[in-house]
Amino acid sequence: MTPRDNVKALLFDVFGTVVDWRTSTIRELSGFGRGRGLDRDWTAFADRWRSLYQPAMEEVRAGRRPWANLDTLHRESLETLLAEFDMRGLAAHEVDHLNRAWHRLDPWPDAVGGLRRLKTRYVIGPLSNGNVALLTNMAKRAGLPWDVILGAEVARAYKPLPECYKRNAEILGLAPAEVMLVAAHNDDLAAAAAVGYRTAFVARPGEHGPHQKKDLHADRAWDVVTDSFHGVADAMGCRG
Amino acid sequence: MTPRDNVKALLFDVFGTVVDWRTSTIRELSGFGRGRGLDRDWTAFADRWRSLYQPAMEEVRAGRRPWANLDTLHRESLETLLAEFDMRGLAAHEVDHLNRAWHRLDPWPDAVGGLRRLKTRYVIGPLSNGNVALLTNMAKRAGLPWDVILGAEVARAYKPLPECYKRNAEILGLAPAEVMLVAAHNDDLAAAAAVGYRTAFVARPGEHGPHQKKDLHADRAWDVVTDSFHGVADAMGCRG
Repeated sequence: MTPRDNVKALLFDVFGTVVDWRTSTIRELSGFGRGRGLDRDWTAFADRWRSLYQPAMEEVRAGRRPWANLDTLHRESLETLLAEFDMRGLAAHEVDHLNRAWHRLDPWPDAVGGLRRLKTRYVIGPLSNGNVALLTNMAKRAGLPWDVILGAEVARAYKPLPECYKRNAEILGLAPAEVMLVAAHNDDLAAAAAVGYRTAFVARPGEHGPHQKKDLHADRAWDVVTDSFHGVADAMGCRG
Repeated sequence: MTPRDNVKALLFDVFGTVVDWRTSTIRELSGFGRGRGLDRDWTAFADRWRSLYQPAMEEVRAGRRPWANLDTLHRESLETLLAEFDMRGLAAHEVDHLNRAWHRLDPWPDAVGGLRRLKTRYVIGPLSNGNVALLTNMAKRAGLPWDVILGAEVARAYKPLPECYKRNAEILGLAPAEVMLVAAHNDDLAAAAAVGYRTAFVARPGEHGPHQKKDLHADRAWDVVTDSFHGVADAMGCRG
């Protein structure tokens, strides 16, 4: 029995696994700064923005606030950072445009080709904390050939809550063991495995820039361990 | 100002508009009957199955039962019909297979080509009472190139309830006026227009077979009126 024997769908973590959010947001912020004549440490801005991601979702996960999608959480964090980086007074459409930097992230070089191979044999979709509009716009721009857009918004529960993984399998009409999560993060895979998903780890050692310490290697013997989507496609029996 | 000026996404009714549910379910039922040596009026079976569709959803819309997706409602109707057509005693996997006939519907001849054209310029997706698994499996088999799978299940409200249209626009991060519904049914378009959607009527005079009386023509001056998805693509400025 190989990992692929019962798998019908492969769902993917997105930020870090499918797309290089850090390089892309630094590019978006720098471009905005050049256009407006603003000189800031855009790398620090991007890293700070991402650092507010887990605490913002934790408010929702812990039930301290009602459901809010990731565009909303990103926007609130952005308002905080615009104050911190002395950028108050932008027009609403400029703030909107900056916030949608997360809709314009570039895929890792192997992502589109690997997904195309996997799509020939499996249902493929994102299982991301990003909201449906963000994931749809990202896919359209980047050419990600998803069959379906899933994730936290559809489940109204952020990863790594078990409901998020359970509900997304249910929406596909599948048992958890028929779904494989592909992710660059060991904790995401652990939460998925705990509800019965199959697991594929794809190392993305550049996700957090040159000084990344976490998720350089698989913590456990996940069903598939590789460093590109082509490795996942090879392991899952898809032609090259 | 043309109908397309503000439109960002085209959402499609599916049963009757994108796919020929009647010919397809008759084919599926007949094939099952031949394999099992069962001789029944499969056309009557298909039409009866469809006739139970609105009453089943009405129980949910009216709040007389909690949310149940269309696979569940189809399955309940199927059990009723298996009794009516003297087909009790099928194995569970056979009933499942028959119920998933609705996942294996064929598109009208212009559907895939028209959608490919529209996808070059707009976000496209189903806005169907069918559930996500049904729509995903159908798209995969038929080659429908959706960007996103939406519909009643995502909104937890069946058409023509206004919440269904409103919530689906919201999930895309769009105002209702930025969304166009494409449908072969005047009542669906009327409900969408009432919440602010743009509208395209595509005549499908063969949907209900040779004796169809309803929806042969547009009841109103919808934004687009045509008889194929290529007509929608022409009207919406997409190259041929």
